[in-house]
Amino acid sequence: MNRGFFPPAEPVSRLIDEFNKLPGIGPKSAARLAYHLLRMPEAEARSLAEAIIAVKDKIVLCSLCQNITDSDPYAICRSKQRDQNKICIVEEPLDILALERTGQYQGLYHVLHGVISPMEGIGPDDLKIRELLGRLKSGKVEEVILATNPNLEGEATAMYLQRLLSPSGIRMTSLARGLPVGGDLEYADEVTLGRALEGRREV
Amino acid sequence: MNRGFFPPAEPVSRLIDEFNKLPGIGPKSAARLAYHLLRMPEAEARSLAEAIIAVKDKIVLCSLCQNITDSDPYAICRSKQRDQNKICIVEEPLDILALERTGQYQGLYHVLHGVISPMEGIGPDDLKIRELLGRLKSGKVEEVILATNPNLEGEATAMYLQRLLSPSGIRMTSLARGLPVGGDLEYADEVTLGRALEGRREV
Repeated sequence: MNRGFFPPAEPVSRLIDEFNKLPGIGPKSAARLAYHLLRMPEAEARSLAEAIIAVKDKIVLCSLCQNITDSDPYAICRSKQRDQNKICIVEEPLDILALERTGQYQGLYHVLHGVISPMEGIGPDDLKIRELLGRLKSGKVEEVILATNPNLEGEATAMYLQRLLSPSGIRMTSLARGLPVGGDLEYADEVTLGRALEGRREV
Repeated sequence: MNRGFFPPAEPVSRLIDEFNKLPGIGPKSAARLAYHLLRMPEAEARSLAEAIIAVKDKIVLCSLCQNITDSDPYAICRSKQRDQNKICIVEEPLDILALERTGQYQGLYHVLHGVISPMEGIGPDDLKIRELLGRLKSGKVEEVILATNPNLEGEATAMYLQRLLSPSGIRMTSLARGLPVGGDLEYADEVTLGRALEGRREV
């Protein structure tokens, strides 16, 4: 500033700041995005702004699966084509997106909205576990798939749920651990490789 | 879709699509951004949306330097502290930001808004060259710094300007080419290293 540094025009600086707050967007990408928006046709920029506002105005949590939805209950919970006897428990709404992309799961979901993390002061009561227990009471559910992330906190949360639900006698499964498809044995870490060996199957 | 794939709620899908259109944001980052916005406090999301709209509503091109600005002429063009005898010619508004960050340039700028690119059908008339000639007519300008990008099209554009302006007798300079500071001689490409040798200076 002292040497007469001129920042960009105020609305541009402000937009750069706003983009910079988003995850994975550093100051340089933020500037690039802001200048890209300046060159975009007005209608397209407006359409982005409106999409941001719409998402805040129209989105609620599904009273059943706790996924984000614009109509409660969420489409999957309402669907007659989905297997009502299976519930797949995930940490975040994004995980549902990933599982749906496989096209291989036909059951229902339940979003915890986080994991148990004593370090961050997040306990079971901060997650949507009470809502899960409510859904399991119906007695219709035959299998619960614990699909938390394969890391320390995800595994701890799965373990907690396993203990909590075991008295119910519902079948509990977890996603297979092993080598990622397209991956390289040479680069696999020893824990993954160990789990891949442990879970080996007849060919 | 055939296997009963459920996309996210419509407002979320729409926001993912909108983010996906931005440069450097793929479908996965777009989804991550959209879900991040969902978790953001409403006021912050609105503030991003408003910043996008403000940038389209309030920004114009400076009638002198052609940089984007919210008040014409742009602050640098109006400033009495800037050296009116130097004009630094850049391709894009972002380049001004980069040069201002150095704190070492005290002259004026001129934004071409592109480079000559026969492949993309962009000729000299598509750039803000006419406006540049208008500014040079005043006779006040003593030095023109050609600061287009050090690539094929940038160099060709600089060459074109050099020929165009040489009858005026105005001093023309270009930014030094050489090793990037903090870089590694071993990894420098041969052209850069060649230019660094060519431009070597007494120590």
